[in-house]
Amino acid sequence: MSFVAALAGAERINRSLLCVGLDPDPARFPGAMKGDASRTFEFCAAIVEHTKDLVIAFKPQIAYFAASGAEAQLERLIAYIHDTAPDVPVILDAKRGDMGSTAEQYAREVFVRYKADAVTLSPLLGFDSIEPYLRYEGKGAILLCRTSNPGGADLQDLRLDSGEKVYERIARLAAGTWNTGGQIGLVVGATYPAEIARVREIAPELPLLIPGIGVQGGDPAATVRSGWRGTAERTTGPIIVSSSRAVLYAGSGADYAEAARAAADAARRELAAALV
Amino acid sequence: MSFVAALAGAERINRSLLCVGLDPDPARFPGAMKGDASRTFEFCAAIVEHTKDLVIAFKPQIAYFAASGAEAQLERLIAYIHDTAPDVPVILDAKRGDMGSTAEQYAREVFVRYKADAVTLSPLLGFDSIEPYLRYEGKGAILLCRTSNPGGADLQDLRLDSGEKVYERIARLAAGTWNTGGQIGLVVGATYPAEIARVREIAPELPLLIPGIGVQGGDPAATVRSGWRGTAERTTGPIIVSSSRAVLYAGSGADYAEAARAAADAARRELAAALV
Repeated sequence: MSFVAALAGAERINRSLLCVGLDPDPARFPGAMKGDASRTFEFCAAIVEHTKDLVIAFKPQIAYFAASGAEAQLERLIAYIHDTAPDVPVILDAKRGDMGSTAEQYAREVFVRYKADAVTLSPLLGFDSIEPYLRYEGKGAILLCRTSNPGGADLQDLRLDSGEKVYERIARLAAGTWNTGGQIGLVVGATYPAEIARVREIAPELPLLIPGIGVQGGDPAATVRSGWRGTAERTTGPIIVSSSRAVLYAGSGADYAEAARAAADAARRELAAALV
Repeated sequence: MSFVAALAGAERINRSLLCVGLDPDPARFPGAMKGDASRTFEFCAAIVEHTKDLVIAFKPQIAYFAASGAEAQLERLIAYIHDTAPDVPVILDAKRGDMGSTAEQYAREVFVRYKADAVTLSPLLGFDSIEPYLRYEGKGAILLCRTSNPGGADLQDLRLDSGEKVYERIARLAAGTWNTGGQIGLVVGATYPAEIARVREIAPELPLLIPGIGVQGGDPAATVRSGWRGTAERTTGPIIVSSSRAVLYAGSGADYAEAARAAADAARRELAAALV
């Protein structure tokens, strides 16, 4: 099944726009696990087990695994998600951006080694840096457009001589000539709802991955209103609203997975309420 | 020793501007090694051993290790370079670009886990995505500016309403307010000598990492003339001219490391001749 079809399925089955971001920081693991990177899989698997019926997607962030040499645990985690939550697609948050034969190697890492359904990518090197990922039929390629950090403005908000801003140009390319196989999505931060609305206007059909609710402070209701879903006359592409730390570290005791479930369910309901 | 000081030392000791890029593709390994990713360290170590007195830097490309799960071999390779060629700095080509606590994790991966001297980074997320790397005193952060691929033009060559192009803005930020500790360099492709000259004008003091000679077709002499080094009145920052496949795969037999040495020495001499 394609990434886009899997998203639609998970949204319907779990009635959710919420994506749980898996950013496992051993320093924040609960109780006796604290500081023990060898328990990264165990920590994440319990979160997956307790939230898999509440989400549209899971999004492991590869940096947290790479920092402690936990690549084998990441392989195991993604296999576990596919096994235990087969309806929920996995977005590997890697923000890769390279060219030619190097991009081919990264695509192999993401889709062959880790078996993710989609990956986040930087578009700074242009279409020929994206194309190697699109050769994997049905897989998703989600391009950074307007990120949730203040520094995103340094380049993404610059105005071009055409009148567009850089992030608007990225959205236009992604929705247009670059989207040769219907595989492209965009990352827009929940902290910038006006930019979400603008991107949705330029790219009505594309999946939008929207991190930044929770710890980063994006407002879930504003996010949904900005990114969702057109009018009765028109349906737009899905939105995937991602929260990481506010779910993972909702509790700091032995019941951390139950606390994560409660936090995820609250976020899911808040997003659903904003749909009405 | 800082990355910038190490570069100056290696340039002087080896009388070289050449950087050998370590892009180990098992499909191109010679003879009985062919296709065997478990011999990645062995393949690269022989190249290092045969070229270490000819280079200003080594640049392992992490994608080639990640695609086949060879992270432990990359750790071992960088330790080997530090051990066997202590004067030659290591640039980890990773093109990371992420924010906040995720950028901190990537910085940890690069500088604590792999113990690289410098890393390539994407500036698309702005200064707050670069700053976590600068906290590692003396380490280098080399930002993508005008990459060597044609698709680089898609965004990097766009003209802003200020009259600058995007890559010129990146160079100006990198040479100015972003360069708080003298750690920043820029990537400019050898395939675009006019852009190298322009970047050198904007950022006279910064190290320039220039890939794209060899297989990609950049002209070494034009590269050196564009990037180097000002006039008798003024000395500019170093240039690091990188070649990967033309060195690594110069031979396809048991003597591949000797062939790599010959190719590297020829490239080194060609670069040196263009200096005059």
